[in-house]
Amino acid sequence: MTPHPRVPADRGAPPFPDPVRTLWLDAEGMPRTLDQARLPFEHVEIRLASAEDCAHAIRTMQVRGAPLIGAVGAWGLALALADDATDAALERAHAALAATRPTAVNLRWALDRVRDRVLPLAPAARALAARAEACAIVEEDVALNRAIGDHGARLLRPLARPGRPLQLLTHCNAGRLATVALGTALAPIYLLHAAGVPLHVWVDETRPRNQGASLTAWELADAGVPHTVIADNAGGLLMRQGRVDAAIVGCDRVAANGDVANKIGTYLKALAAQDCGIPFWVACPSPTIDFAIDDGDAIPIEARDARELTHAVGLLEEASRVAEVRLVPAGSAAHNPAFDVTPARLVTGLVTERGPCAASREGLASMFPERVPAARATQAVGG
Amino acid sequence: MTPHPRVPADRGAPPFPDPVRTLWLDAEGMPRTLDQARLPFEHVEIRLASAEDCAHAIRTMQVRGAPLIGAVGAWGLALALADDATDAALERAHAALAATRPTAVNLRWALDRVRDRVLPLAPAARALAARAEACAIVEEDVALNRAIGDHGARLLRPLARPGRPLQLLTHCNAGRLATVALGTALAPIYLLHAAGVPLHVWVDETRPRNQGASLTAWELADAGVPHTVIADNAGGLLMRQGRVDAAIVGCDRVAANGDVANKIGTYLKALAAQDCGIPFWVACPSPTIDFAIDDGDAIPIEARDARELTHAVGLLEEASRVAEVRLVPAGSAAHNPAFDVTPARLVTGLVTERGPCAASREGLASMFPERVPAARATQAVGG
Repeated sequence: MTPHPRVPADRGAPPFPDPVRTLWLDAEGMPRTLDQARLPFEHVEIRLASAEDCAHAIRTMQVRGAPLIGAVGAWGLALALADDATDAALERAHAALAATRPTAVNLRWALDRVRDRVLPLAPAARALAARAEACAIVEEDVALNRAIGDHGARLLRPLARPGRPLQLLTHCNAGRLATVALGTALAPIYLLHAAGVPLHVWVDETRPRNQGASLTAWELADAGVPHTVIADNAGGLLMRQGRVDAAIVGCDRVAANGDVANKIGTYLKALAAQDCGIPFWVACPSPTIDFAIDDGDAIPIEARDARELTHAVGLLEEASRVAEVRLVPAGSAAHNPAFDVTPARLVTGLVTERGPCAASREGLASMFPERVPAARATQAVGG
Repeated sequence: MTPHPRVPADRGAPPFPDPVRTLWLDAEGMPRTLDQARLPFEHVEIRLASAEDCAHAIRTMQVRGAPLIGAVGAWGLALALADDATDAALERAHAALAATRPTAVNLRWALDRVRDRVLPLAPAARALAARAEACAIVEEDVALNRAIGDHGARLLRPLARPGRPLQLLTHCNAGRLATVALGTALAPIYLLHAAGVPLHVWVDETRPRNQGASLTAWELADAGVPHTVIADNAGGLLMRQGRVDAAIVGCDRVAANGDVANKIGTYLKALAAQDCGIPFWVACPSPTIDFAIDDGDAIPIEARDARELTHAVGLLEEASRVAEVRLVPAGSAAHNPAFDVTPARLVTGLVTERGPCAASREGLASMFPERVPAARATQAVGG
């Protein structure tokens, strides 16, 4: 595959190779990314040349992962303004992009941020300012993930049992493919691996879209991190067998009380971790926290196309091409909710870019005091 | 598909159509079954003409489900004795058949039962006696399942919420395809449906072999029972949303303390049911109870070929044929344990053919008092 541009290393931190980027600018200054719907068996770059390209990429899950969706959404708004920078066009593009994925709060956060940045400006100045804001969101994501990686590495490293590699379990893909670089849940893993800490990752397959089997496994293999793919059903057994030292997952939205919306099935792993006395950490960049949502039950749960469940996409090895096979007989209905909510009581803690905190109203407020009053104001406006 | 022979209805019970059989005898008196590895998209009958046919069918999961494996194992021993009825041949066939699936206790139970029946006989009399014993095991399975169905229906029926069909969730396939007829966990569902009780079944896909999506969905559709296939990851969310009134699953082995070994992922659903206050019933024919195993942690967990996880088999619709696609990139390892153990504390109760009982040493001993001392004797011999 095409080599990706790399960001300069943070000189103040311990040595870590420049992280590989999932979103980068080509020679003409246009954003590019990998088509994740075609990974791991086809490596196809896509050029995001318009707001519609960005909306399409999000809607069809060519890009996925809350932070990456936010970055692509911001770029979409910037590209829309390059065509038409009027107030009406801005609102239209904002609404169209926001509608592509309802659960991921980063998308709205990024779109609002770009809009708020450019709305006070004269239309002629908006496109350039939006572009700068999108670039800032992208760079901040890399820095956030690096900070989460450092905090997470400090939490996880001591959990290794004597005489064996640190055994971690993760669900879905909260790796570099879900973000601009490094990932959230995988950032500590990449940093520990780079520091020479022996570790091994149990990768939940993550049905129905198999982001664990196809994306997490692919990026961990690409980085040389030891890992094993398991069925989503298997994590509970491995925990009971003492073969997991900690679980770490990402999140799509965290409510003000610490409840975590994440890929469907996360709740089941959190229950097993609690039952087995295993730490269950959630890597949580602050844009994913929604102080305007009081608790997790109020988070809208997106139901996706049942075809994601009734069919599976993979490599037809005999023909060396990607193909789709039907798994569920045609006479049976299927239901495909994409996320579930893990109650805060099951979460050991949230690993934010400012450090770990309790998954609770108090924990979040102590870590992000400046956001709580703003959220109250938002709620009042929204209500 | 070929119509299957039916058993006469039990005249003493409420009307229920003669149940469709998964194992039946053809005109030449040889057992036949469906190749379940090819369901739901291909309906292929297989004739079990020798012990090796039976062992192959069990090993390759052409037949699966603890009760059906037991019945096919018994037939395998009977067919072996038709070729060679010496003590040495009997022990060889017993050992070979027992080695095909280590977790399912019914297999050993059925093999031991046939062996114990014929061992005192002269070799010339053994083949016919073994055949009669295999037939008895088959008929008893139908009767056991009918009794479990009646008891389970009485437990489940009152759980329906007003104004909506009874909402049940099941994992894997503990239906008629897992047994000779009716199934264990699905037996109450078939009986309630036949009695006109409105109900709907959430069917866990059950990775990695998709027995829910391919077998449970197929047999429920075949019987006209409303159902919806979901990812294994989704059951926790549905329980939290109040969309499940009860879960009912089968079991591969139950320890003397009530711990339940069943298809991988069962433990996760039991945790969610407990967390949401939803009854979690295990349909448990008595041959599945292993009084010689003190608790669930001592039950051996079979790890199966990783290919079951790295690849998925389904219908390649464009070519109207069954094909296999690779899901996990070749550079990633995979681990495929087939069962997990659900601790008795998470089980609302066991539905046995004698009625429901607590999943505990006391519950099992009160229901099957005659088996406890025998089990102790077995343990002493084994130890």
